[in-house]
Order: sequence, then structure tokens, then C-alpha cells
Amino acid sequence: MMTPGRTSVDREDDTVRALSHLSKEPVVVIGGDAAGMSAASKIRREQPGRPIVVFERSAHTSYSACGIPYYVSGLVASADALVARSPETFRQKYAIDVRTNHDVTDVDIEGRRVRVRAPGEDAEFWEPYGELLIATGALPVWPDLPGGQANGIFGLSTLASGIAVHRYLDRERPRAAVIVGGGYIGLEMAEALVRRGLDVALVERAKEVMGTLDPDMGALVSAALREIGVALYLEESATGFETADGRVSAVVTDHRTLPTDLVILGLGVTPNTQLLKETGMALGDTGAIRVDERLQTSVAGVWAAGDCAESRHRVSGQQVHIALGTVANKHGLVAGTNIAGGDATFPGVVGTAVSKICEYEVARTGLQEHECRALGWDCAVATIESRTRAGYYPGAGVITVKLIGERGSGRLLGGQIVGVEGAAKRIDVVATALTAGMTAEDVVGLDLSYAPPFSPVWDPVQTAARRLVKAL
Amino acid sequence: MMTPGRTSVDREDDTVRALSHLSKEPVVVIGGDAAGMSAASKIRREQPGRPIVVFERSAHTSYSACGIPYYVSGLVASADALVARSPETFRQKYAIDVRTNHDVTDVDIEGRRVRVRAPGEDAEFWEPYGELLIATGALPVWPDLPGGQANGIFGLSTLASGIAVHRYLDRERPRAAVIVGGGYIGLEMAEALVRRGLDVALVERAKEVMGTLDPDMGALVSAALREIGVALYLEESATGFETADGRVSAVVTDHRTLPTDLVILGLGVTPNTQLLKETGMALGDTGAIRVDERLQTSVAGVWAAGDCAESRHRVSGQQVHIALGTVANKHGLVAGTNIAGGDATFPGVVGTAVSKICEYEVARTGLQEHECRALGWDCAVATIESRTRAGYYPGAGVITVKLIGERGSGRLLGGQIVGVEGAAKRIDVVATALTAGMTAEDVVGLDLSYAPPFSPVWDPVQTAARRLVKAL
Repeated sequence: MMTPGRTSVDREDDTVRALSHLSKEPVVVIGGDAAGMSAASKIRREQPGRPIVVFERSAHTSYSACGIPYYVSGLVASADALVARSPETFRQKYAIDVRTNHDVTDVDIEGRRVRVRAPGEDAEFWEPYGELLIATGALPVWPDLPGGQANGIFGLSTLASGIAVHRYLDRERPRAAVIVGGGYIGLEMAEALVRRGLDVALVERAKEVMGTLDPDMGALVSAALREIGVALYLEESATGFETADGRVSAVVTDHRTLPTDLVILGLGVTPNTQLLKETGMALGDTGAIRVDERLQTSVAGVWAAGDCAESRHRVSGQQVHIALGTVANKHGLVAGTNIAGGDATFPGVVGTAVSKICEYEVARTGLQEHECRALGWDCAVATIESRTRAGYYPGAGVITVKLIGERGSGRLLGGQIVGVEGAAKRIDVVATALTAGMTAEDVVGLDLSYAPPFSPVWDPVQTAARRLVKAL
Repeated sequence: MMTPGRTSVDREDDTVRALSHLSKEPVVVIGGDAAGMSAASKIRREQPGRPIVVFERSAHTSYSACGIPYYVSGLVASADALVARSPETFRQKYAIDVRTNHDVTDVDIEGRRVRVRAPGEDAEFWEPYGELLIATGALPVWPDLPGGQANGIFGLSTLASGIAVHRYLDRERPRAAVIVGGGYIGLEMAEALVRRGLDVALVERAKEVMGTLDPDMGALVSAALREIGVALYLEESATGFETADGRVSAVVTDHRTLPTDLVILGLGVTPNTQLLKETGMALGDTGAIRVDERLQTSVAGVWAAGDCAESRHRVSGQQVHIALGTVANKHGLVAGTNIAGGDATFPGVVGTAVSKICEYEVARTGLQEHECRALGWDCAVATIESRTRAGYYPGAGVITVKLIGERGSGRLLGGQIVGVEGAAKRIDVVATALTAGMTAEDVVGLDLSYAPPFSPVWDPVQTAARRLVKAL
């Protein structure tokens, strides 16, 4: 005989059973760097008892890939300094079952399980999951060129690859290096190797280095590199590598042959999604995993975060692939919140990035001129030169600010900054203004801080905005 | 006999007459610093032929009052360096009739004219105006205390007063100084005088210096001052001055007597509106001139800009008096545009300010805790300590960020920052977010720039915003 009481108990039993099912099958995270470990940590904070297993292919967790050039240059003394939290810390303090040197080789969506190869074993095992987070990151673009697999050619994306370069420098004592590709990593590594005393050349297909800037701004960075002695070969492409005894001995371009002892690839990264090819999981046009704003993939219960996943660009409205630590950390927090039963959305990116190249700080956000044109938007630009401090204050140095805005609406579309110390962080004002959908006029009206050690009375960003108002 | 044609001609004649009247009577500007000269320059750019007369009481135009402490300390070599444009430049290059050492002693609203005392003359003359801009600035608050008029007591607001202090230091070689009041100017002067080798004491009525910060943040600044040897007497008020031979010899407080050779008043400023007392022109509760958002006063054709005028606070919605160069420059641009026949509005302030005190950068924007309480707003606060750079990057130093938000709406209300080099300019992100009406959650989602030389991967402002989200 059923009583209301009995029914209620049954329901409770069902709930307990459902929960125990959830808690039996762990959250599985593939990838133990920024996105994966941010998510795992968030789940742990929200759900202290929930089993979490992280499979990380390398020996390291939660390290600063952005710090690798400074470790290579010697500015940062040890690779350990780049590790925010070690696998041991996660295991002991956070009760997260982090398994390093474990390679996930397959994802079985139907069976809700992943296939894993443990270190030193030929055999693989299947690990079931309750929910799955894919945080496999990105891989350096490796050109399919003759000799491309020779020793002495390094891509840089993992701490292990940074350690490998460091070791190569210490053991092989190379005297010359060629950087192939002039993006952030290529340029930061060029500077690092100059600091280590190497002769450094850089080959870049485009007209100027740093293609995330417009060429007029990129030219300032090219000049900075030449100043510290980097030989730039612009509008030139690598076509192959010469080798001797299996080791790289020269980079061959479409114009010349550059003898070298070491090659660093700085051709950008590509989302690491090989694993998902057979799963039917949707990828975007960028090649990265398509996610909704809660960072769920096209498969319910499977999430993606960090360098392997897309983001929505808040200015263009398009899906983009931006492989940066800031995005990965935010992705991880959002995905972790949702996996833990919360409800968080990732608001998107505006494409902000910053780098220090030699004496210069370089920053960008929003859209470039060519991106605006590709969207068919009628844009105007304004570029101004100002000072980082009041002109009379010691240490005042040059800063160039470029702003892009949309004719008609007056809406700000993007900004780029190159300047000496104190210049670059101003990009955050532009990023915040872009996020708020501000016009150039709105930026002129902002109540930004001023004192002689910090700025001219009109902040350079506002001086550029004033010029942009006229140009619009 | 009247014909329509005739009437039309008459009307044209009237228009011509009205215009010629406009162009005959000059724009008169009272005050030749930031607001006045920004406006005059803007009018000149828009209306090349329009007569503009500027009466400036001192010998200088367009100087950086904010730079005075650095001139006094010796960091900036000459007072001339603080002058952006001299009276001669305005006269010769801009055809602006700048008359320095001319004191406006009366404003005749009915007669549309001002009474002026020329230098070295007892007689005064009346100057008619087409339109009038009041840019008389602010005066240092001078306490009405026994001995307050003695030699050796300086208020600082004009370049002339800065030069006077500099000369006093050179000639009189004072060994001890007392600063009365712990606002920006007082603190910057305390540091300047320590640099000049003086023994410096500071008397402040409140619990901590820098009342524009909440006391918990002000305490960090108090500590920084003590570190460089400034003797702080907090919760203590000056009650008078002892003098010897007409020169100040001690500051008397409600607790002690502090022997001194020099006193700097740092009690803030008050709008310089004495001139308008008899005119019937409306002043706000702050004592500054009430203006509409086009910066017109209660009298048509009379405008006010800079330290003598009010602004609307974009967070509180209240009229405020904020005497800062940034505001004065923007006021000048808006008033100048409107006087020149354009249509510009001043969007208001959020109360952003920054200062460098010893090793520390100090910044604030928006509302303080006590201001939120006074408005009856239910606010939460979050204070975090982080680093200015990635923890492993050389030169990473401490930064403390405090954010205030409104419970319920989640809206950001204010922020304060104290930290080492690279800390303070982050306040501009908070100021921009306040302007856009962002919530703490919105700030967490901002795509701010990160690279190891510039920031931890979560910018300290966002770390504070994350904490604030929890506190709200």
C-alpha cells in the first residue's frame, strides 16, 4: 500500500540514486593547464565531494606558458617558478585526481568514456565520465617543409618545450638562431635569444612583424627588433630546412639561405582537436571546438574550454579562436561553474593582447583595419604620438596610439598601442570601452586619471579619441 | 511703403547688425589657466576672426599646477618647464589677446562688461563682452587661525605660489616644515620637502591621510609617508601659528606645538567665486558655479569652466566640485565649443584621481564607502592584495585594490588602488566601467590585457571584482 509518506521516501531514494550515479562517474578533464585546472578548482570549491580526474599529457599542471620566453632568457631563474600549482598540490590540497603523463587517445561519446594511455605502458584503459571537459589546448603550427622534423627546431606551447629549448641552449651552445614567424611568441623568443647572446634572425611572410597589429603599428615593432640587433627578413617565407647529422643547419627561404644552429617556430597555434575528429562533435570554421555561451559543446554533458575552444568576439559578433591565458582562465571558471551545477556564461572576447618587445610595450584590442574592411564596415582611423608622462616629468617617453572607429555610429572598433614603459596597459581602457559599445566621443568624455608621473593631462588614449572624432 | 522684399532686407540688416555686434564685442575669458585657455584655443580654432580677450591675474598662462611639487623638489628643473604655452605664444600664434597681471574686480551682468585693474595702475577700466567665460579657478583653503597670515605660510594653487615656495627654500634654507592637511597636494609637498632635505611633519584632522580614500586604504599611504620619515600627527588639528619677527615659528595643534620654519597648507581648495557674489549668478551647494551640461551659467551668454564650476557626478547623480586639471581641460573644450556656436555637452565626472606618494601609486574613482552610506545605498566592499606583474617576473610588487558595489543591482560604485609602479593607471578601467554602469560581474568578464611583465593572468582589478561578486 502506497502512502504519501512512502512516495516521498521513494523520491528521496531516487534523488540519492541519481546523485550517487553522478558522484560515481567522475568529472573527467582532458588537459591540466589554465582552462582545465581553473575548471577543476572551481568544481572542487563548489562540490567538495565530487570525484574529478584530470588527464594531462605532460608532467606539468597550471603553468604560465606566457612566461617561457623569460625562463629561456634567464630573467626567470627556473621552470618551476612558472608553475602556479603542481600536480601534487592539486592532489593533496584540492583532492583532484591529477594524472600527469597520461595521454587521452580517444573519446567515446556514446559510452561516456575516454581511452587513456598511462605512462610507460603499451596498454590503454577506458575511464568513464559523468561529465567531460575538453581542455586540450593548442599546438604550435608546424610547417610541412623539407627538414621540418630535424633536431634543433622547436615549437613552443608547453612548459616541456620551453625546458627543451633551455636545455638545448645550455648543452649545444648554439651561436645563431632563426625565428620563423613574427607573432608574439616569435618576437619574445627573438629578444630572449638576443639576451642569451645569440645572433638572431627572423623570417616573416608579412610586410611587418606582429600581424595582430596593422602594418603601420607593426613597423614600430620591427624597428625595435632591429635596434637590438635582430636581422629581419620581411615579406619572405621559409621553404625548407637544411640539416647536418639530423640537426638543423640552415633555414631556406624564398630569397636566401640562413645558416643556423637553432630554429624557433613562431607561426601561431592551432586548436588541438585531433582527438575529436571521429566523435562527430561540432567544430567551428576556426577549427576550434564550437561551444555555446555556457561553454557546452554540441554534445550534452561535454564541455570545452581554453585554447581548443572558440569564443564570440564582442565587436564583430563572429566566432574566433584566441589562444591566450586570460581567455583560458575565464573559460575554465565558466565551464567549472556550469559543470558544478551553476549557471555562468562567458561574455566573449574583444581580442586584447599585450607584449613587451625590447624596450617597447605593444598592445592591441578589437578589430584591425583589414578586419573592419572584411566585415564591410566603413571605418576611420586616427593615430597620435604622445608621451607616457607629463612632458616635463623625468622618464616621459613616446607612446603611439591608434584607434579605429565606425563612421556614422561613431562606435569604437579597435585600438593599438606601441610605446615605452607605462604605455601598454592603457589598452585596457580601450578594451573596456569596446565592451561597453562606447563611441569615440564617449572615450573623450571619460574621466581618466592624471598626474604628471602617469600621463599628460589628456591621456594618450583620449588624445587619439579626439583625433578620431574629427576623422569620423 | 513696405514690401516683402524690403522686410527681407531689413531682416538681413538686423542679422548683419547682430553678427557685427557679436564680432565687435569680444569673448572675454576671466582666468588664463587650463579651462580658460582650452576654451580660448578652441574658439580660435573654430572662429579664426573672433576677438578673444583673456584677463589673467598672475603672470602665467596654461601651466601645470599638478607639476608644482616636482618643481619644488627639484625633479623638474625650472618653473618654465611647467608652462605648456606662454602668454606670448597665445598672443602671437593664436591671436588671443592675453593680458596677464590683469585682475577682474567686478562683473556687470546687465551691462555685459567686466571691470579690470591693469598692472601698476590704480585706475580700473570696463571691458565689454559679447560672451563671458568665468574660469577663475580655485583658491587654497586658508584657515582663519591666529598667526595665519605670517610669512613662511604657503598655500599652493598657482604657479606663482610654487615659485614663491621654491624661492623661500633657496633663500631662507628652512630646516623643518609642517604640512597642515593630508590631501594630494599636502602629501606630494611632504615628499618634495623630504627630497629637499627638510624635516617634515604633517598634521591631519582625520584618522588617516588622503581623505579621498577610505581609511583602510588611506592607512597604506600613511605608512608610506612614515617610511620616508614624515612625522604624522593624525586626528589632530592646527589651532594656530606662533610667529617670530612676522615669520611662522611653530604650528600649534590641539595636542602639541611643532616648531617649524615653513608651513604648507594642504587643506584643499575652494572655488574662486568671490567676484560673483553681487551678480545674482547661481552658485551650487558646493559653492562652485552652477552650470548646465553645456556649461552655461544661470545667465545666458555667461559660461563657467574649470575649478570654479560644478560638475555632475555620473555615479551619484549629484553636483560636485572637483578641482582637477583633467576636468578643467574638458570643461574648457566644451565651453569653447559652445561659445564658438557649436553644441557640446560635458558628460560629467566619476571622481578619478591619481597621485604618486613616495614609492606608492595611489588612485581612486567613484564613490567612497561613506558616500554610499550617505546616499542610503546598500553597498558591499572587496579588498584584495595582488601583484603588479606575474609573481615570477622581476619587479613584481604589491598592489591593493578595493572595489565597492551596490547590493541587489551588482553595480560598481567605486574603486581605490594603492601599489608600487604600474599599479595606479589600472584605476582607468574602473573609471570606464563606472561610466558604462557596469556590474562587478561585467568587470570579471572584461577582456583585459595580460603578459607577465604587466600583470598576473587575472588583472588585480578583476581579482577584486571576483571577490566583490561574492560579497554582493
